[in-house]
Amino acid sequence: MDKQNLIDTQNRISPYIHRTPVMTSRLINKLAKAELYFKCENFQRMGAYKIRGATNAIMQLSEAQQKKGVVTHSSGNFAQALALAAQSLGIDAHIVMPSSAPKVKMEGVKSYGGKIYICAPTLEAREAEADRIAQETGATFLHPSNDPDVIIGQGTAALELLQDYPDMDYVVTPVGGGGLIAGSALAVHFFAPNCLVVGAEPFEVDDAYRSFHSGKIETNVTTNTIADGLKTVLGDRTFPIIREHVHDIIRVTEEEIVAAMKLIWERMKIIVEPSSAVALAAVLREPERFQGKNVGIVISGGNVDLGNLPF
Amino acid sequence: MDKQNLIDTQNRISPYIHRTPVMTSRLINKLAKAELYFKCENFQRMGAYKIRGATNAIMQLSEAQQKKGVVTHSSGNFAQALALAAQSLGIDAHIVMPSSAPKVKMEGVKSYGGKIYICAPTLEAREAEADRIAQETGATFLHPSNDPDVIIGQGTAALELLQDYPDMDYVVTPVGGGGLIAGSALAVHFFAPNCLVVGAEPFEVDDAYRSFHSGKIETNVTTNTIADGLKTVLGDRTFPIIREHVHDIIRVTEEEIVAAMKLIWERMKIIVEPSSAVALAAVLREPERFQGKNVGIVISGGNVDLGNLPF
Repeated sequence: MDKQNLIDTQNRISPYIHRTPVMTSRLINKLAKAELYFKCENFQRMGAYKIRGATNAIMQLSEAQQKKGVVTHSSGNFAQALALAAQSLGIDAHIVMPSSAPKVKMEGVKSYGGKIYICAPTLEAREAEADRIAQETGATFLHPSNDPDVIIGQGTAALELLQDYPDMDYVVTPVGGGGLIAGSALAVHFFAPNCLVVGAEPFEVDDAYRSFHSGKIETNVTTNTIADGLKTVLGDRTFPIIREHVHDIIRVTEEEIVAAMKLIWERMKIIVEPSSAVALAAVLREPERFQGKNVGIVISGGNVDLGNLPF
Repeated sequence: MDKQNLIDTQNRISPYIHRTPVMTSRLINKLAKAELYFKCENFQRMGAYKIRGATNAIMQLSEAQQKKGVVTHSSGNFAQALALAAQSLGIDAHIVMPSSAPKVKMEGVKSYGGKIYICAPTLEAREAEADRIAQETGATFLHPSNDPDVIIGQGTAALELLQDYPDMDYVVTPVGGGGLIAGSALAVHFFAPNCLVVGAEPFEVDDAYRSFHSGKIETNVTTNTIADGLKTVLGDRTFPIIREHVHDIIRVTEEEIVAAMKLIWERMKIIVEPSSAVALAAVLREPERFQGKNVGIVISGGNVDLGNLPF
């Protein structure tokens, strides 16, 4: 993978996604004693960066493959992203969702024309059902994060940020399955090699932090965090990129996540999901590290349940 | 007042305010069957358009007047706007606030360097206290809406909207004291004379609707609405402009306000206050009128109490 791959990816997907704005806040800069640049993927189509990787992965399939559709299993944003990307590109999307998935996410998938298959809420049941569909329909399975085409697609958000603001000292993103941070790390490596990439993760699901330090992929025993997008673990495609190109991973408490989320809502007047607030929480937790620096923060999404807010 | 006055006003205040973005939503356009252009004054300094008029009114005072400061009474956004505008311009702001004003607004005024005077929560007490301060300090009293310099300052939001999108068929704004809609109506009259200006108002405080139809300034018996910015009544400077240049006023229910607010939060991922949602609610209430039209909507502000949301 090189510079040109990332530029090609950007050109490929740009007709199907929004170029999202970068926002700033004087007040939050004053608090952080740093210059923060928020790349607002909460304003992206379907409300999260995931549409980037989903669109790219579908477009990289052959015409014959595209005709047979795509399949994934997801309870969250990637389900909606793949359904919408498939709809934009005129192909079928088969989405396996656990019976425990929020109704609003199922409705989202349905509104984007995805075919929903409900299964038992276990990883085994999800994988078995996705396998069955792939075999019956010939649809290609696409993983939400552990896929090179998905990873490089997600990297276009950080690429846009660096095109708008080249002089970043840090780029900070949340870490879940690792697709966003791996893609961001590639973009920074190619286009701003002196900039450091830092991941942000809840203490409650610190598998990436532990993997980063142990050198092998670690799992979580519990996933008791409000940052519902970050409960997944790294994969064998995302982890090597993270080991090579990510500078550090900062962990934050649940209280810090909610405080950062409230700060963004109240001061920037934008709606961000808890998983996105994790990145600002990390910057505010370590003021010495970021003081006086230009810090890009990828706001990953804005899909929240307004009936279930933490404040 | 003419075209040039408005342009001069824009040039005068532009170093002290943000030029706010205009946002759109495919999904809301589909629902409304119209092209809606949201002028996002929720992203304005202190979170509302009111800083425009406050800044302009202060700048139109003589240097001698400015040295003696300004005074107003307000429980809401204008208190914060005048404090921040005065701070930016390096003068004193005396803010009379009723003891019933929300703590968060008092803290806002304080954080912008305003001097707060608490009084009994009646109009008489507020006016008496403001009079006393004006006499003792020589400060100039500025009204939140019923002032020509405030009105034309507020009109710069619609002016910017028309500079970005000249082909509007309608501009819709909420109506409280009338400063925003009167200023907007002047901007539209000067720069888009074929565009119609429509006001939006809760049924629960429909004084402007009744004034518009009776031809004299009407008052409200109760003000039982979630749109806390719209509880005030028209004044003798705002009403004549509204009579002359506003096409119609649409009233909406409380349920319609909350539904429109939820729609903006969920689909546009931006935080708008209930008073702002009133304008979208009006457009959604009368689909026949707006179908197929280009409709500018002034989102007046985004100052909400996250601990007290209607959903």
